[in-house]
Amino acid sequence: MNLLDSIDSPEALRELSIGQLYSLCGEIREFLIENVAKTGGHLAANLGAVELTVALHRVYDTSRDRLVFDVGHQCYVHKLLTGRREAFHTLRKLDGVSGFPKPLESVHDASIAGHASNAVSVALGLARSRTLQGADIDIVALVGDGALTGGLAFEGLADAGASGEPMVVVLNDNGMSIDKSVGGVSNMLARLRVRPAYFRFKRWYRRSIGKIPPLYRLTHAIKEWFKRHLLPDNQFAELGFEYLGTVDGHDIAALEAVLLWARELNRPVVVHALTQKGRGYSFAEQQPEAFHAVGAFDAETGLQPEEKRSFSDEFGAALVELAERDPKITAITAAMCAGTGLTDFAERFPERFFDAGITEGHCVAMAAGMATRGLLPVFAVYSTFLQRGYDMLIHDVALSKRHVVFAVDRAGLVGADGETHQGSFDVSYLRSVPYMAVFAPSSFLELREQLVAALYRIDGPVAVRYPRSGEGAYTGSMGLAPAVRLREGSDLTLLTYGILINEAIAAAQELERSGVSAEIIKLNLINPLDFDSILASVAKTGVLLAFEDACETSGIGEAVLAECVRRGISLRAVSTLNLGNGVVRQGTVEQLKALYGLDAYSLTAQALKLLERAGER
Amino acid sequence: MNLLDSIDSPEALRELSIGQLYSLCGEIREFLIENVAKTGGHLAANLGAVELTVALHRVYDTSRDRLVFDVGHQCYVHKLLTGRREAFHTLRKLDGVSGFPKPLESVHDASIAGHASNAVSVALGLARSRTLQGADIDIVALVGDGALTGGLAFEGLADAGASGEPMVVVLNDNGMSIDKSVGGVSNMLARLRVRPAYFRFKRWYRRSIGKIPPLYRLTHAIKEWFKRHLLPDNQFAELGFEYLGTVDGHDIAALEAVLLWARELNRPVVVHALTQKGRGYSFAEQQPEAFHAVGAFDAETGLQPEEKRSFSDEFGAALVELAERDPKITAITAAMCAGTGLTDFAERFPERFFDAGITEGHCVAMAAGMATRGLLPVFAVYSTFLQRGYDMLIHDVALSKRHVVFAVDRAGLVGADGETHQGSFDVSYLRSVPYMAVFAPSSFLELREQLVAALYRIDGPVAVRYPRSGEGAYTGSMGLAPAVRLREGSDLTLLTYGILINEAIAAAQELERSGVSAEIIKLNLINPLDFDSILASVAKTGVLLAFEDACETSGIGEAVLAECVRRGISLRAVSTLNLGNGVVRQGTVEQLKALYGLDAYSLTAQALKLLERAGER
Repeated sequence: MNLLDSIDSPEALRELSIGQLYSLCGEIREFLIENVAKTGGHLAANLGAVELTVALHRVYDTSRDRLVFDVGHQCYVHKLLTGRREAFHTLRKLDGVSGFPKPLESVHDASIAGHASNAVSVALGLARSRTLQGADIDIVALVGDGALTGGLAFEGLADAGASGEPMVVVLNDNGMSIDKSVGGVSNMLARLRVRPAYFRFKRWYRRSIGKIPPLYRLTHAIKEWFKRHLLPDNQFAELGFEYLGTVDGHDIAALEAVLLWARELNRPVVVHALTQKGRGYSFAEQQPEAFHAVGAFDAETGLQPEEKRSFSDEFGAALVELAERDPKITAITAAMCAGTGLTDFAERFPERFFDAGITEGHCVAMAAGMATRGLLPVFAVYSTFLQRGYDMLIHDVALSKRHVVFAVDRAGLVGADGETHQGSFDVSYLRSVPYMAVFAPSSFLELREQLVAALYRIDGPVAVRYPRSGEGAYTGSMGLAPAVRLREGSDLTLLTYGILINEAIAAAQELERSGVSAEIIKLNLINPLDFDSILASVAKTGVLLAFEDACETSGIGEAVLAECVRRGISLRAVSTLNLGNGVVRQGTVEQLKALYGLDAYSLTAQALKLLERAGER
Repeated sequence: MNLLDSIDSPEALRELSIGQLYSLCGEIREFLIENVAKTGGHLAANLGAVELTVALHRVYDTSRDRLVFDVGHQCYVHKLLTGRREAFHTLRKLDGVSGFPKPLESVHDASIAGHASNAVSVALGLARSRTLQGADIDIVALVGDGALTGGLAFEGLADAGASGEPMVVVLNDNGMSIDKSVGGVSNMLARLRVRPAYFRFKRWYRRSIGKIPPLYRLTHAIKEWFKRHLLPDNQFAELGFEYLGTVDGHDIAALEAVLLWARELNRPVVVHALTQKGRGYSFAEQQPEAFHAVGAFDAETGLQPEEKRSFSDEFGAALVELAERDPKITAITAAMCAGTGLTDFAERFPERFFDAGITEGHCVAMAAGMATRGLLPVFAVYSTFLQRGYDMLIHDVALSKRHVVFAVDRAGLVGADGETHQGSFDVSYLRSVPYMAVFAPSSFLELREQLVAALYRIDGPVAVRYPRSGEGAYTGSMGLAPAVRLREGSDLTLLTYGILINEAIAAAQELERSGVSAEIIKLNLINPLDFDSILASVAKTGVLLAFEDACETSGIGEAVLAECVRRGISLRAVSTLNLGNGVVRQGTVEQLKALYGLDAYSLTAQALKLLERAGER
């Protein structure tokens, strides 16, 4: 008998006995393992949140109540229980089910979530609206312990705690964030985990003395005295929350009881649930980090295919070699040690490695401090997450022209993680930062060379942006000139940078077969731009096809066209291709490239169209 | 006998008796009042930090040790004591002394500071560098209580506390931030202020039992027991800091003793000093907020000249009127209630007014939550501070196309506050946000009309950007069309938006006197751009002078030129003027306009130059 198949909506959960619920949890785990083994995705966090999600759906009606996920990659169980089981094989695929909560996909998804630490803020907005509107709904935020390291979570908690707004923050504490959570927050949570006295006292009080009305005043005074003098305060209480914890996050009955209690309190409450990441799948239990985000893998053996060497790997290896020779180099990450390729560095140079949790703004400002004293800090960070550090890039780094190196990973198209994770904005926001130099390597070799240049040839802020993938057919180097002619041609200029150089080369070869001679200008440095070299080619051919894996606004396409006008260079035909100004959705990188006309095939067609148009003039 | 004149460097402070120090503090206050009455500036915070700054300079050598200010407007006393007394009359003037710490100005200024909450992060970077380099210097961060509300401060404290790095965070707690500090942090500090027991115990312990070595082990155990069971924890201790406080921030001897003690502890320490904002100047003591940031005023009477009505005032008045009719409207500020003109709104609609402290990221995400439920949240924020919310603009607002209104105040040139406060980036970063509509009113009337349009005609994120000043000669309205022809002409097109429309009109009138017929295209909406209307004029005149009070990258100049190329419109001469890609310094707005060629005089000259160039072609 398959229980999961019988769950067409979360209400059905309320009909099940506790035994059936545990059976269902088992089925959900099987389903997750089987499916994610095929689609890839975030596995371990979801395996850890099965009972918690079931309990939440027993207590709350997510079609009315609002359940706000934080980060959101632990939303799979929620999706299975809210009508997306049958579409689940399309997870993370083009036009398929998103790997993150998505309001457009279901009324059960309260808000989009892919970046960390925002859920309490969003939930507070919902709660305040609810109160102003006099609506009768509950607001719940589900937050992982890792997300608590982010200052945004603190801002949200401080405002929510002081607001008195009825809302419940469920802390899903598996004792680790993506990498191990670090620093003060982690220590604080660790202390709470070993201090259940407060919670036990509260439970006892609630069940005994608290139920005897005549004694209330006296006992309340006693309780307050206890609270003040014997029970450890904690940060949540300091900020104005009622703190209920810790509770076993795999005990459905206990979770339900606490959630009902939390709702009854009718004020800001933190429910602190302890869960085990990877629960119920031995391979993931043993290596939760390895099963955090996976590609397709073998469900039976837990074996994941060896991943192709990536730019991140190459960056990490290069930085280790450089750090061996130069003690001034430090490496900084915001909870993405493995993802950014810094694992080796962390082991080799622990005293020069700094993981500050999900704190991009802090990392940028801290790096500025290091640069002030002549160290060579390298902050390795995903393009989409560095958005959090935009103000610090300007204020703490650029205004004083501090020499900080930003290794901007996952720049451009990231693929299956979709709209919350695309690296489509970095070219735009980095170009606006004063003095910011931006390198864009096209190969591993160039990444190494440009990293060295960023460290030793540049004075001031400098970024090296590279994609999530490995390198393509182009594995060479064209040296460090800001703009280089990779291929000589006479009919049109193909202008691009980074990983898309592979598409340019393939398109040029294809065009050659049609008798078209395409010149390729490859940018090593996309800010500032070497207009002389670029426009020499453009003026020669008179036809420009500029393309990039970045949003349109403030892309290099716009900048180059503007400079053409300033210099009075007239073109016979021109086209700029990019990721547009909208939202870039999920799909494979190949699919997305095709969608935006950035693959060799589309580029060839566009080039021919341009030449036709040019001939007409 | 004037003591202040004899202080040529902070070392001289160490020769003074305690009585002389207090005399000096009196002289400093007189100096500050007298000078700021002439130059304008941040008065109240500095009056409150006199003894604290003197004590810091008695203990630390800021030519070697690093004193990192947070926000930094309380650095005047520091500047007086470190060689900038004689130049102090140039405060906040073009080429004069900066109103904020500035490393380029003095070796005593460790880092730039104008935005809040970053000091602990920067200081930790310095401390880690110091340790890696084996240098023998001390690191101190001076942080106001308001700055603690920012999540960035929390990120810094969490990392610093866990790092164990010797450093001292001096909390200058005057019980208010720029507006009254709010929420959980404020409550926590309030509790600490009335709980001096812990500190008294520590002091007693240190002076008595702690001095008897044989008793150490036993007493240490007792102390730890006390600490764990009887003494209130606080957030700083939770995060790994030794907490020393509270101490009277006007008692130099006590401050010195605590600072020496803090240094001795050789680990992360918080010194919690209580100060009185505006101390020693009765008008400022009584109205510390009114004397937070002032223009020139009468030192004798404390009377400040009535300020000219500003766009902020007009925005606040308009929003109150709209909110009277529409209960869905809410107003949000990040500790800038008065500055953004929301004081009346806060009084009239307290249940719909939300001040969350210095938490721009949280405010954006919280507004997204409100918009999700159909409220009409308006987040009023300075252009430079909204940089902190860049990621949330994209992630929480734009990806789900939430209808949040951003009232972007202090956009463009802000004048005397200088490089940390210029609103030169908003056009660039807002244009990169998907679906973001950006209005740019040129008059109070247009601000009102565009605010209404932003609330009721736009679906999705929308910003209204306006300057710090009042309106100019142009007080009319050209309706809501995205681009309008304000003046018909045939020789060249002047293209601009916002407050600079006044310069365009003046330039056009001046050009007319030279027989030049200038057409003015005024943009009401700077994103997305109405290229059809803009380019119709450009194609007609063939000469374009586009100018804006925003940085060059991703400004509308670049966008319009690029579109000219795409549409094959060739121009005979073109010039785009803007704030460039560097750092915009301090000076009056008029001076800065002239510096960047954005005043009517420069524009006229530039227009004539363009026409000359056009004639040559």
